[in-house]
Amino acid sequence: MEASLRPDIAATVAAIAPLDTDAMAAARARQEQLTKPAGSLGHLESLAIQIAGITGQEQPVAANKAIVVMASDHGVTAEGVSAYPAEVTPQMVLNFLRGGAAINALASVVGARVIVVDIGVATPLEHPSLLSRKVASGTANLAQGPAMTRAQAEDAIAVGIVVVESLAQEGVQIVATGEMGIGNTTAASAITAVLTRSTPAEVTGRGTGIDDAQLTHKIAVIERALAVNLPNRDDGLDVLAKVGGLEIAGLVGVILGGAARRMPVVLDGFIAGSAALVAEKLCPQVRDYLIAGHISVERGHRVLLEALGLQPLLDLDLRLGEGTGAALAMGIIEGALATHRQMATFAEAGVSEKEESSDE
Amino acid sequence: MEASLRPDIAATVAAIAPLDTDAMAAARARQEQLTKPAGSLGHLESLAIQIAGITGQEQPVAANKAIVVMASDHGVTAEGVSAYPAEVTPQMVLNFLRGGAAINALASVVGARVIVVDIGVATPLEHPSLLSRKVASGTANLAQGPAMTRAQAEDAIAVGIVVVESLAQEGVQIVATGEMGIGNTTAASAITAVLTRSTPAEVTGRGTGIDDAQLTHKIAVIERALAVNLPNRDDGLDVLAKVGGLEIAGLVGVILGGAARRMPVVLDGFIAGSAALVAEKLCPQVRDYLIAGHISVERGHRVLLEALGLQPLLDLDLRLGEGTGAALAMGIIEGALATHRQMATFAEAGVSEKEESSDE
Repeated sequence: MEASLRPDIAATVAAIAPLDTDAMAAARARQEQLTKPAGSLGHLESLAIQIAGITGQEQPVAANKAIVVMASDHGVTAEGVSAYPAEVTPQMVLNFLRGGAAINALASVVGARVIVVDIGVATPLEHPSLLSRKVASGTANLAQGPAMTRAQAEDAIAVGIVVVESLAQEGVQIVATGEMGIGNTTAASAITAVLTRSTPAEVTGRGTGIDDAQLTHKIAVIERALAVNLPNRDDGLDVLAKVGGLEIAGLVGVILGGAARRMPVVLDGFIAGSAALVAEKLCPQVRDYLIAGHISVERGHRVLLEALGLQPLLDLDLRLGEGTGAALAMGIIEGALATHRQMATFAEAGVSEKEESSDE
Repeated sequence: MEASLRPDIAATVAAIAPLDTDAMAAARARQEQLTKPAGSLGHLESLAIQIAGITGQEQPVAANKAIVVMASDHGVTAEGVSAYPAEVTPQMVLNFLRGGAAINALASVVGARVIVVDIGVATPLEHPSLLSRKVASGTANLAQGPAMTRAQAEDAIAVGIVVVESLAQEGVQIVATGEMGIGNTTAASAITAVLTRSTPAEVTGRGTGIDDAQLTHKIAVIERALAVNLPNRDDGLDVLAKVGGLEIAGLVGVILGGAARRMPVVLDGFIAGSAALVAEKLCPQVRDYLIAGHISVERGHRVLLEALGLQPLLDLDLRLGEGTGAALAMGIIEGALATHRQMATFAEAGVSEKEESSDE
């Protein structure tokens, strides 16, 4: 399968190395010396050890944070799959750029930059802070044929790779995935159905808030999309192009590019998870670089996290996307690394260690 | 029961008012106008509405944060209930004061002050940043008789009330509970067994990390404590004095005092939860002011959160105490209030609202 990847994408995949087990062992040893009962910081400890392996540093820092919000439109909105009109995509992009959206507020709390990328909004958009990287003016209707050509999907992946590469050069140490695209839970459900071998009904939810009749219709649209396109589950790019979306493809690039630069990649919700499924199909090694920020209400999310073997950090009944769950998770990750770096050891603090049981 | 409360504690209890339902209604209406599908921020939305009710403000602020860490010793450590020697209590207090503990690192991430209170450490302790409010040099062994006199329990509650009152006067807007005390999960389990009508075996866990035989022994010690002391489950102060601890009593005061000052009170783990059980017994209204920061590994924690009707924000397999889970939760709460205050409304942002279903 890798033989079919475009050279720039193949090079990124080739750069994704196994975790640094020496750094992980050193981090694990450090955790055992910090002034707390061993294991008592739970997931914070495993995060610190994972990020040591990702970065190759015993005491990693992830203070310089960025959230990449990829925005695009979906031809499948013509089928009436969303509770909101497609015009909301560009409206919300402008809201992000003016700082009025949830992701702006949450990013400011955790001290993260928000990078907004127009990778496929159907209407023209201009703003000094917008990264205009439009691959197409929205996708085609995946219920009638392929959402994208294979070349478009590759172009969108390459956009993500280049964006994250330039962030890495600017000193960003941790990246989170965000997205905006009315209709994109339909694409994410289609991808998830194919790549986790589930039925559309098992992995399709209410998105922004459709009712029972609309949900039944949405599932039927996805079933039609799979029947019309026959995506090949052994070819991640084929699945992505036929039933995905431009922002999902862009996030595949962010995930691969982040891992290639040895950065932790914090996944937001269901859309990000569908991108991770595709990325993992192109490069199974990428899984070790992923942190599932949260589990959303969208029912397919649990299915895909289990398929990826990822445990979500947060469970707050979120279903907004934008990167909101990932932004909140960045605060937890910062806490994990702060305890790992800043805590005194038993020896440094003069604190007595655990008493050994006499019978051990 | 309130008739038996000391006047200063009774006055604090009397000052705890119902939530401001007008502010909550205004906050709820605001949430419906913010640029997101209604309900899509899940628990963040309910937190914002709860804190509006607590503070009486439609758009509350909780930027000025404090974590009160109450430290004390427990006579029951003579029974061998903990994996660590009692000398660790003062050693860890000094570690807090020097900034080397987990709570220091996590407090710095969320921008919270850490207030360390010696409310009953057995050995003399001095440090310029330590609040010395020693009620007694540790408790008596609750397996042989009452841990405290009723007057000592009242004195310790009053310490908590005064500490939180002075923080409120300094501008603190949200308070979290922290604690340190080798042996204190034994006291918390005893309180929880009595006030949730559970058996000690149902609410006793491994604390800092004891093995199976030690756990069996710990449960037997708690059973003995209940048989010896016969705490009256209808009298929260009686339960607290007989099988509680000085830091737990101090936290009862922090909880009551915080609620009386209309501040959100963020509970840490099992020890804080046992204090909340007592506080709720003294004043059922206090429940509305509580936010359960996380659910810990300690098995009694789930039992008491259910009894209090509280849903934990985080589930990260923590079992350290100190206030660590509450500190992390403060970051989530700040996110909830930031979205609530800073997001644009649909009208402000020019974003289209949800399309009504034609059949509705």
